[in-house]
This record gives sequence, structure tokens and C-alpha cells, in this order.
Amino acid sequence: MRGAAASPTSCAMRARPPIPLALPSLRLPRWVPGLLRRQPARFPGREARMRLAIALAAENVAHASGGPFGAAVFERASGRLVAVGVNRVEPAGQSHAHAEMLALALAQRALGGWNLAAPGLPALELVSSSEPCAMCFGAIPWSGVAALVCGARAADAEAVGFDEGPKPARWVAALEARGIAVARDVLRAEARAVLAAYAAAHRTIYVPAGRK
Amino acid sequence: MRGAAASPTSCAMRARPPIPLALPSLRLPRWVPGLLRRQPARFPGREARMRLAIALAAENVAHASGGPFGAAVFERASGRLVAVGVNRVEPAGQSHAHAEMLALALAQRALGGWNLAAPGLPALELVSSSEPCAMCFGAIPWSGVAALVCGARAADAEAVGFDEGPKPARWVAALEARGIAVARDVLRAEARAVLAAYAAAHRTIYVPAGRK
Repeated sequence: MRGAAASPTSCAMRARPPIPLALPSLRLPRWVPGLLRRQPARFPGREARMRLAIALAAENVAHASGGPFGAAVFERASGRLVAVGVNRVEPAGQSHAHAEMLALALAQRALGGWNLAAPGLPALELVSSSEPCAMCFGAIPWSGVAALVCGARAADAEAVGFDEGPKPARWVAALEARGIAVARDVLRAEARAVLAAYAAAHRTIYVPAGRK
Repeated sequence: MRGAAASPTSCAMRARPPIPLALPSLRLPRWVPGLLRRQPARFPGREARMRLAIALAAENVAHASGGPFGAAVFERASGRLVAVGVNRVEPAGQSHAHAEMLALALAQRALGGWNLAAPGLPALELVSSSEPCAMCFGAIPWSGVAALVCGARAADAEAVGFDEGPKPARWVAALEARGIAVARDVLRAEARAVLAAYAAAHRTIYVPAGRK
């Protein structure tokens, strides 16, 4: 078929597969509403918020609905839950569908726009069961959140085979320089246990083969 | 209303606004199919591929359908176009809807999964009208592309007011260390002209206020 530049075959080649014009909607797993119904109206402190992020990660492993990562966005002062996310890379077929990316985009969906620091909105906090990878780290300043709270360390995710990517060595300082507060090691042991459970179940460590 | 923990009002507070369970589908603008119909079946070299990325950026400015950034994914050897993307942050209300993110996710949509380096797929190349921001830089290794080709420099985007984020100083070396080839300054002047046109039209430079 090569070289048939002016034939009808050429048009067929061009059209197959077609250039896609839209992405399928990213959706949270079916078990999420049930988990949310069991939650309190407010999450008063960092540990309560982190417990939800870890529960999301653990349920995602238990239901085989994605990678062992969970995240949630809260109003920083009131503790009201705004949005949640879990890793959906494999079920969605999209390599950027990390827990933090979904939680941030769903918080923007809940609050009406791309800027979570827009006038009139309360300060918001992203709580993640693991420290952000290089991509999610880069996404945080664009989202408008005022703070980041992390459970497991990047080293914990790497210990079970995940790759956290080429993040700057001084990533915490880089966020703080932009006015984003960072807290680490909140319920780290509990968060790390979810990573271990995923590894023990021999689930996919989705890093592109040959590009690591 | 505070403290009415067991009343119906408490439930109403918890439910308003509801926690969203899905993101709206990210879609390319309506003018994209028309632009694609005017394109050749194959893009033989870097400059031809970059011309498409720049045309996407320029049309996105002309149609006021997003920021001044365009990107496309090609089969590296054959030059076949696989997917395109443009910045959709404002119309989509999602801060991560950068041109590169859409192009990569749509390429994954076209080719059937999250890993563009999966066995059986040809090596793929991401061509972007501007160098990637910190987020898109971090997303590139997860996507499975084999190469990145850039038009305008990050400094060109910064010169008109955009913020490229906390990218590692040695970002090119970081990608190359992962087996991802990087080419810069391909049609840089033409790519920079699109950024200037956007700035001249006084369009939004969408960086969260107070978090820069």
C-alpha cells in the first residue's frame, strides 16, 4: 500500500485510525459514592483528611480499579470535602490520570473553573496518599490550591517499583516559593502499607517499557 | 446553621455542592476537523510537523478557543499524524488542559491505551509549538513517546507573561536520560510570533492569582 499516493487507498490510509477529537470522560470508580456516604460532613485536621486519601487508595487496590494512589481536595479552614481522585491510568487508558490530577480537575469542576485561587473561593488543600510525581508536582501550581499534604514519600512508591519522574530535588521549596504550603509524612506508615498491598498483589507498575 | 449536626440542614450542607464523580469530556475546538482536512497524509520532517503545531496554536488564538499553544503526535519514522492538541484551559475549566496533555491523551485514545511505547506500536514523537511547562515535562515520560520537538523557548512564553513552572534546570538531559530525544528551536521565530499575537490581543494569561 505504500507509495499509492493518489489512489483511494491513500485516503483510507490517512483516515485509519481517525484523528480523535475528544477524550472519553474521566470517571471515578463505581465504589466511590458508597465510600463518600460513609464520610463525615467535615474533616477537622490533616490526619482525618489523610485518612480519606488513604482509604481511596486502599479501595482502589481492593477493587482493582487503578493504581494505589488516592487524593482529595478540602477547604483548608472548614475541612469541607470538595473533590476526590484515585489513579485511573489503566482503566481510562490515559497516562496522566493520576489521583492528584483527577482530584484537582474535579475540584475545578465542583467550583466552576480552572482557577481554585479565584476571588471568592476559600483556600483549598490537596491531600495525597503519596508525594506527587513530576507531572502532578508541575500541575499543582496551575491548579490554584494553597497547600499540599502528603502521606507516603516518593521513596516509598519507588521502593515498590513506581517511578516518580524527574522532579526537581528542591521540589518542596519550589512550591513554597509560590505560596503553596507543603506538609509531608502525615500517616506515612499507613499510606506506605497501601503501596505494599498493591505490590504484594503483583499489579501492574505502569511505567512505559524502555523509557525508564 | 453550624452545629446542627443531626438535622436535615446538615445533610443539605454536606451535599451542596455535590462531590463530582466525572469530568466533562475534553474536546478539541470545532475548527479542528477543517484544519485537519487541509493537511497532507504524511509530514516528512520536523519542520512540516512543527508547522502543524504552530498552525494549531495560531488557529486557537484566532478562534479564541484557548491559549496560544498547539501540539501534535506523529509516527516518528513515517510522519503519519496520530493526534493533535491545543490549549483548552479556559473553555474546559481545567488547569491541566494544556496542548501537550491533550495531544498525548488523544494519541493514547487513538492507539488503544495509556502506553505509547507498548509492544507493536511505532516510535512516536510529540511536537509542541512551545517548550513544555513543568507539568507537561513531567507527563512526557509517562506517555511513552520516544521524542519531543519544540518550537518557541520557555523564555519566549515567559516574555509575554506565561509562567512555565518549576521545571528542573537540566530538563532536556532528564528526558534524554530516559531515552526521549529532544530537539529545540524548530521554527522558533514562527512559534514565538503566535505568542506575540496572543499577547497583543490582551487575552488571559492564566496563572492562578496570588500563587505565582
